Amino acid sequence: MTTRNSTHGDRPRVTILGLGRMGTALNRALLAAHYQTTVWNRTPSKVDGPVALGAERAETPGAAITASPMTVVCVADYAGVQEVLAAGGTTLRGRTLVNLTTGTPRDARDMAAWVAGRGADYLDGAMMAVPQSVATPSAFFLYSGSQDAFDRHRRALDALATSHYLGHDPAAAELWDLALLDSGYAALAGFLHGLALLDTAAVPPSRFVPLVAQWLRGMTEYMSELAGEIESGDYSAGASPVGMNRAAVMSLIRVSEDLGIDAALLGPLGTLLERGVAQGRGDQSFASLFELLRRVH
Amino acid sequence: MTTRNSTHGDRPRVTILGLGRMGTALNRALLAAHYQTTVWNRTPSKVDGPVALGAERAETPGAAITASPMTVVCVADYAGVQEVLAAGGTTLRGRTLVNLTTGTPRDARDMAAWVAGRGADYLDGAMMAVPQSVATPSAFFLYSGSQDAFDRHRRALDALATSHYLGHDPAAAELWDLALLDSGYAALAGFLHGLALLDTAAVPPSRFVPLVAQWLRGMTEYMSELAGEIESGDYSAGASPVGMNRAAVMSLIRVSEDLGIDAALLGPLGTLLERGVAQGRGDQSFASLFELLRRVH
Ligand SMILES: NC(=O)c1ccc[n+]([C@@H]2O[C@H](COP(=O)([O-])OP(=O)(O)OC[C@H]3O[C@@H](n4cnc5c(N)ncnc54)[C@H](OP(=O)(O)O)[C@@H]3O)[C@@H](O)[C@H]2O)c1
Ligand SMILES: NC(=O)c1ccc[n+]([C@@H]2O[C@H](COP(=O)([O-])OP(=O)(O)OC[C@H]3O[C@@H](n4cnc5c(N)ncnc54)[C@H](OP(=O)(O)O)[C@@H]3O)[C@@H](O)[C@H]2O)c1
Repeated sequence: MTTRNSTHGDRPRVTILGLGRMGTALNRALLAAHYQTTVWNRTPSKVDGPVALGAERAETPGAAITASPMTVVCVADYAGVQEVLAAGGTTLRGRTLVNLTTGTPRDARDMAAWVAGRGADYLDGAMMAVPQSVATPSAFFLYSGSQDAFDRHRRALDALATSHYLGHDPAAAELWDLALLDSGYAALAGFLHGLALLDTAAVPPSRFVPLVAQWLRGMTEYMSELAGEIESGDYSAGASPVGMNRAAVMSLIRVSEDLGIDAALLGPLGTLLERGVAQGRGDQSFASLFELLRRVH
Repeated sequence: MTTRNSTHGDRPRVTILGLGRMGTALNRALLAAHYQTTVWNRTPSKVDGPVALGAERAETPGAAITASPMTVVCVADYAGVQEVLAAGGTTLRGRTLVNLTTGTPRDARDMAAWVAGRGADYLDGAMMAVPQSVATPSAFFLYSGSQDAFDRHRRALDALATSHYLGHDPAAAELWDLALLDSGYAALAGFLHGLALLDTAAVPPSRFVPLVAQWLRGMTEYMSELAGEIESGDYSAGASPVGMNRAAVMSLIRVSEDLGIDAALLGPLGTLLERGVAQGRGDQSFASLFELLRRVH
């Protein structure tokens, strides 16, 4: 096909398996960065949109994998990845599979072994993004597994988001993903709860946003202090001690309930702070709560 | 005292009642901004440090209040403020009292009435700061109550932190404080829990900080979307629907437990997401959880 070659022939090629909300966004980002994509999706109708934007349609996962040195798979879960690759798995030899599907660290380790058994390089990835933030400065993706594959495909990966390589253990990206989701969900839940408090005085949510953004910026600066205290194991500085924070959180719970707002979201932190005080950490830094959360080795 | 006058006579004066960790930091910030401070503390020995830096010592709260047009009170709680002012209350007439003590919205409303009864202007304040961040760009203080007093004393207040005036209702600063603390505590708890997850793979806390900072920046951008959805009442966009987030949080809880890390901090969010799905909000935006948290009017 001369026409196709003259248009796309010199573009680097990337295959995408799975055109859900995220796969569709990944395809758009790669096309915008002048990659030629080949796409496949279980439900064929979802391929039409991406093809209209310039992607090439593949009829099977195997045909899709064959079209590019690197294949990105992004489906609902690892069971789905297994199903997709069961058909196309033999065509993986000598290629790179980048798995951006969300799963557990164990899923990632198992998948890495399976893919290695088929002679392919494996990168496990986690997308710290929502569909509309892909390829914007706020998106970043985490990778772990083959450093070689990461280095080789870095440019294509960077077209999706800022790329962070976290090490050879293929489970690392999923573990870090969980840790980040943990912090992110906690912040979002706290935000909605804060809005519920302000709602009792009819404060519109958008008025709260700039201040909460500034406050959370301050919290992230504070996190770097907390991290330092945890690494040193020295919790004696205590400018913001467990005992004071317990009082503040208990008061937050009380006032919340007085205002008619369910404080269940705050309960476990209150309990953790109580336990900290009971352990004699009342004068220690807030960071010392880490010792109550970490696994005892 | 000619010497004192020639040194300090043309400096604007501010009084500080309470030289705990925060009061001490406030005094330092005001001296650095070339205010002449007069200070009083219940335990007299704590006055020595501030006086060595240039503050003037007052023997009683009343004498301290008399020394400046504006008095900042920053003690442990509102009961303490009552106690301090019980002595010096009659000297408040025609002056401004800025109360930076942490309390409830109700505390603030009661105190505003009490102070108004003594012929003084009242500003209730909340310090979004820790002692070491006072007068740095990350600190900001919230104020509500007399707008007149806020405008008149704005320069001195700005020497402490960025100042935000939230309206005439004296309770507003405390309510916003609670809403911000809520979000901040949630984020810090999520951060420590995330560190506990990463600790199972021996990831040092400081390595997590830059990524969690970037992730939380993304979350704050996302908050402005959530706020827009709440204001419009339209939760149909659902790029990140309740059902998907429920699955993610449930998996986070499961994996956390598999790794030997207590997931109690995540429990209430899991429950909230379950309730959202049970209410038929599975395809609605995450923002729709606000409807489960807000007080029914
Ligand atoms: N959306 C987000 O905000 C977001 C953010 C970060 C990470 N993620 C993760 O990204 C992945 C994809 O999410 P998404 O939002 O794009 O999901 P989605 O819109 O629900 O799309 C799911 C995709 O998975 C495919 N799929 C599911 N089971 C399959 C199977 N057994 N065999 C083949 N294909 C299968 C679907 O194919 P059909 O079209 O045939 O159903 C569809 O293409 C998930 O792991 C998700 O956790 C999503
Ligand atoms: N530290 C922070 O990170 C932080 C951040 C934001 C807001 N805040 C709020 O700022 C306020 C002060 O906090 P802080 O950290 O400075 O506390 P602190 O270091 O514990 O100092 C408490 C101060 O309150 C005084 N006090 C307590 N009860 C009193 C009473 N009945 N009569 C007179 N004075 C009394 C103490 O006087 P003595 O010296 O005589 O005991 C001391 O000066 C609190 O409301 C706190 O919630 C603190």
